Amino acid sequence: MNQFGTLFKLQIFGESHGACVGVVIDGCPAGLPLKVEEFEVDMERRKGGKQKGTTPRQEDDMPIFKSGLFNDITTGAPLTMIFENNNTRSGDYEKQRAVPRPGHSDFTAHHKFGGFEDYRGGGHFSGRLTAALVGAGVVAKKLLKNITVEAHIVSIAGEADVEKGIQKAIDQKDSVGGIVECTVKGLPIGLGEHFFDSVESLISHAVFAIPAIRGIEFGTGFAAANMFGVDHNDAIVDASGKTKTNHAGGVVGGYTNGNDLVFRIAVKPTSSTPKEQITWNWETNEQETFSVKGRHDLCIALRVPVVLEAVTAIVLADLMMREQKIPRIIQ
Amino acid sequence: MNQFGTLFKLQIFGESHGACVGVVIDGCPAGLPLKVEEFEVDMERRKGGKQKGTTPRQEDDMPIFKSGLFNDITTGAPLTMIFENNNTRSGDYEKQRAVPRPGHSDFTAHHKFGGFEDYRGGGHFSGRLTAALVGAGVVAKKLLKNITVEAHIVSIAGEADVEKGIQKAIDQKDSVGGIVECTVKGLPIGLGEHFFDSVESLISHAVFAIPAIRGIEFGTGFAAANMFGVDHNDAIVDASGKTKTNHAGGVVGGYTNGNDLVFRIAVKPTSSTPKEQITWNWETNEQETFSVKGRHDLCIALRVPVVLEAVTAIVLADLMMREQKIPRIIQ
Amino acid sequence: MNQFGTLFKLQIFGESHGACVGVVIDGCPAGLPLKVEEFEVDMERRKGGKQKGTTPRQEDDMPIFKSGLFNDITTGAPLTMIFENNNTRSGDYEKQRAVPRPGHSDFTAHHKFGGFEDYRGGGHFSGRLTAALVGAGVVAKKLLKNITVEAHIVSIAGEADVEKGIQKAIDQKDSVGGIVECTVKGLPIGLGEHFFDSVESLISHAVFAIPAIRGIEFGTGFAAANMFGVDHNDAIVDASGKTKTNHAGGVVGGYTNGNDLVFRIAVKPTSSTPKEQITWNWETNEQETFSVKGRHDLCIALRVPVVLEAVTAIVLADLMMREQKIPRIIQ
Amino acid sequence: MNQFGTLFKLQIFGESHGACVGVVIDGCPAGLPLKVEEFEVDMERRKGGKQKGTTPRQEDDMPIFKSGLFNDITTGAPLTMIFENNNTRSGDYEKQRAVPRPGHSDFTAHHKFGGFEDYRGGGHFSGRLTAALVGAGVVAKKLLKNITVEAHIVSIAGEADVEKGIQKAIDQKDSVGGIVECTVKGLPIGLGEHFFDSVESLISHAVFAIPAIRGIEFGTGFAAANMFGVDHNDAIVDASGKTKTNHAGGVVGGYTNGNDLVFRIAVKPTSSTPKEQITWNWETNEQETFSVKGRHDLCIALRVPVVLEAVTAIVLADLMMREQKIPRIIQ
Repeated sequence: MNQFGTLFKLQIFGESHGACVGVVIDGCPAGLPLKVEEFEVDMERRKGGKQKGTTPRQEDDMPIFKSGLFNDITTGAPLTMIFENNNTRSGDYEKQRAVPRPGHSDFTAHHKFGGFEDYRGGGHFSGRLTAALVGAGVVAKKLLKNITVEAHIVSIAGEADVEKGIQKAIDQKDSVGGIVECTVKGLPIGLGEHFFDSVESLISHAVFAIPAIRGIEFGTGFAAANMFGVDHNDAIVDASGKTKTNHAGGVVGGYTNGNDLVFRIAVKPTSSTPKEQITWNWETNEQETFSVKGRHDLCIALRVPVVLEAVTAIVLADLMMREQKIPRIIQ
Repeated sequence: MNQFGTLFKLQIFGESHGACVGVVIDGCPAGLPLKVEEFEVDMERRKGGKQKGTTPRQEDDMPIFKSGLFNDITTGAPLTMIFENNNTRSGDYEKQRAVPRPGHSDFTAHHKFGGFEDYRGGGHFSGRLTAALVGAGVVAKKLLKNITVEAHIVSIAGEADVEKGIQKAIDQKDSVGGIVECTVKGLPIGLGEHFFDSVESLISHAVFAIPAIRGIEFGTGFAAANMFGVDHNDAIVDASGKTKTNHAGGVVGGYTNGNDLVFRIAVKPTSSTPKEQITWNWETNEQETFSVKGRHDLCIALRVPVVLEAVTAIVLADLMMREQKIPRIIQ
Repeated sequence: MNQFGTLFKLQIFGESHGACVGVVIDGCPAGLPLKVEEFEVDMERRKGGKQKGTTPRQEDDMPIFKSGLFNDITTGAPLTMIFENNNTRSGDYEKQRAVPRPGHSDFTAHHKFGGFEDYRGGGHFSGRLTAALVGAGVVAKKLLKNITVEAHIVSIAGEADVEKGIQKAIDQKDSVGGIVECTVKGLPIGLGEHFFDSVESLISHAVFAIPAIRGIEFGTGFAAANMFGVDHNDAIVDASGKTKTNHAGGVVGGYTNGNDLVFRIAVKPTSSTPKEQITWNWETNEQETFSVKGRHDLCIALRVPVVLEAVTAIVLADLMMREQKIPRIIQ
Repeated sequence: MNQFGTLFKLQIFGESHGACVGVVIDGCPAGLPLKVEEFEVDMERRKGGKQKGTTPRQEDDMPIFKSGLFNDITTGAPLTMIFENNNTRSGDYEKQRAVPRPGHSDFTAHHKFGGFEDYRGGGHFSGRLTAALVGAGVVAKKLLKNITVEAHIVSIAGEADVEKGIQKAIDQKDSVGGIVECTVKGLPIGLGEHFFDSVESLISHAVFAIPAIRGIEFGTGFAAANMFGVDHNDAIVDASGKTKTNHAGGVVGGYTNGNDLVFRIAVKPTSSTPKEQITWNWETNEQETFSVKGRHDLCIALRVPVVLEAVTAIVLADLMMREQKIPRIIQ
């Protein structure tokens, strides 16, 4: 469902071409000052508006607080933020109704919801929903105080240089994917809960809510499968738990170990590509060749870092609260 | 925590060197016939007893039903299975008390639980707990009927041949990791729930509860990050949603699309290795060199396929119930 | 928290004098037609506007749909409804800031949230929040189809006649309480879940979310404590489970038994009364005598029946979905 | 389901005539010393063995710890307690298979679980399950330290004197009900969570999991419905929130207010009565007159006080943890 968290609980809602997308944060501590301006940097990063390879859709994308804030301070009651959709052109999409786009949720959502789904621009399955995640992430980051959560692009289309990767997409008139890495500094030892609520379980759970993610690995990740044990183990070098290497990516036994938490995710190429593709037309009941028109990112990975930071901060804020390291009243 | 699931709910418990490990399944439909013999194959696979590279610890490992079964049929009440620990040698571990083993939960669990954790053989953090997962997996597989869940080893220590990979470990007197792949056939279209409860979110959540897992990828996974969109998208070739390729690994928009569900996980080398390692001694407050004695797998990945099948079946049984495709009374 | 339900899940938010109150319904089946007009009767009943004994605050109180509806039909995505606050006079309340009103949440909320709570008109603790419950109740009732949920006033101020009870309040220049009874007809046998999720557990959980409720009893209720077993037991008179009497109130062993579900709740007198009362002034740190000014109901119980129906329908819709008696797509 | 709690989470299981009943407590803080002897008093109270009016079934009823305890101290891992069933006589029950007993779950459970339920002695629906609640309650009470939870019988069969009430049952050769009151002293201000998780919501939720409960009321309860506001409101007389009266029963706005928490519950007469009753025979498909044989309490209310204390302590321990007033490691 659209809910996540144990004490810092999110409820996400909205559609790409409906009135808005939004989020309710239930369980946010009281006493946290919040101003709209504090959302500007992250919301802008999500839009990626000035980057080559992202779409020209321009939105203000600033949260409108509907509840839970009084005199610019959280009250402890559910904090509701809405991001209005002002700049939608549904017409671009409606003609594609009978033609499920490969790589999109068109086909699966249609089956699951019997054709009642809002199909305009991906509806509830749109990347537009990540605005709500980023908004909640800003709140979570503030709660985390001196813990820093930073994600950056490792590669685009296999190139370590973003420019070069995007150029590949432009040259090929196609979309491309990328790898994003997230690093969290300043974590206490022992965040994470037993068994099913390991740090990796919760982060991966939240990460795969982001559209277009195909994989996640912690620390050395898939490369660990090819290593010897003595090389992979991180030697503990002092009483604080500092390790010589960080192949574990900062999490051992499901708990943070006080070293940097490090993980990487794989972002697939944008499903919407200008190239011709084959799909099945439900009306003609025949194969059809088509190409996607309208505004689309060449590389959705460019927008992902801030979203990845957001879901990571959301998970960590919840774990900090479970560990009683964030109080119920911020003062 | 040690609970997982929405309608088919697990509660895991137990320790490596305590009385037992076990699981309560809350929400299991009534009317499912269950005999102890049906657990034999999977429990045996988990032990991997005859394989080179797994430890000689021999246990019967068969479930003792404590509740929820009447005349060998589930009643709909919580189904409790216990796996007794008969063959433990705690002495092997106690001398290591002051010396947290690198790669193990010794250090992090000690911090989180203030030294009250049961440290014998990894306690609640031991791979022994996977017996409970496998037991629950047998039940879940029966509920899935004609849906088949099969995992196999893709590589050990970078070698596609298991024998060769294990030989590397033996030659090096060290432990090694591996890659395991899981394929599910026969799934309906539309399993998975909105946003946070996508198929990938739930499976990865459960997968990272298995000790030693460092990464997961669906379909083409990390390789997708290097592909062009037109190559990655799977062309839909008929009304049933069959696709020409399966780069998506059978899940689009968070929902199954009727094609095979395919994903891979990375298993790190066993943390316990006969090689000398460096760690910090809490008592002497000095660095210490040591090597792990006692029974240990050279390659924990060998035991993982059946555990991976189990958690996958558990997630899918829950989603099938949410989708009303498994009834509350099996008949 | 402000969330409730397993498959039909509510998230409530908002404040009395903020922008709005609202509710997100996560898990509402797709395919349910919904028009604003369908909310009119129940929203109007909640306002109780024309009745003696309720306050003159006039609001439109009609839901604004923010998500989850497309072409007037639910999509299966989270359904968000907002009820705007247009007619608030905060000035009435601000001067009472240092004087916690007896019987209100002023004192307890102030302690719990460190003074950051929105205190205007009760803030998040206001009866205004029941608008969101009633809105969700309209949706739940539609899902229940032929199951009817009806609540009515049994007594006001101890009088079986509403008029007479209210007149007592008017004569005394004080507020009064009342008893409300709810009857549900047409339920299948077997709704309710094991142990903690009995029908009584879930209904009472939801009922005590309504402000001012002090007690609940099912069937014969408290009177059962004075009965003999043979008199209290309901004789089963046919194969359908019909009983000769209904002392059980339609629920046995935590499950509905196919007879009418019947329960009653006690509503305390409105805490805000024109009479003089004693409380503690936080600023002067002295006892203080005061009387509440502003708009207030003489008898909040008059508004309760429709709210009680709402929470009952919400619980039952969830249980019907758990029992697979409401499909995921309404057709 | 059989799970309850947010941070201090119970999973109940077992049947009256199966191997055992039991409970897993997931989330119990580490560092709490626990010895079997500490369960003796409460387990004995539950059996009520020496009282007139309770059945002669004798069991040891002491918990066997299966996990979560190491050197007699909780580890923070799931704490599993089992209560073995040693003294069952299934023969008493099997002949009644086709004859659902009025007032029991026989009829409803049979419908819900399609005849697969364990019907012996009430199976999973038996009062025997309350042993698990009382066991968990002992742990919860220890966590609550200086907060005292005490329940006592207010009346039996309408008589304030227990002896007299039981004598009524003996004279009539029938079963009787009673009223039980619970008082909690020493609570901090502000326990309880917003809206759906008010103190009353959570306590009533847990209370109605106890078999045979028909009603609950807080403070003045149902009598409040007949009072005037000025009489019902409790005047706040000092800065600590102490009130002159306690009509609220210690909870205002869903939160504890620092005064004694007081509530009462109604227990119906034991459904099993020696008197002749009418029911429907599924096999003959005819009405049948029968009377219950075997061991049964004349008055189940006699056993209820300790169970009521248990569920109350369980709810309050969870709320104390949510409020960060019980640490994760007890020291």
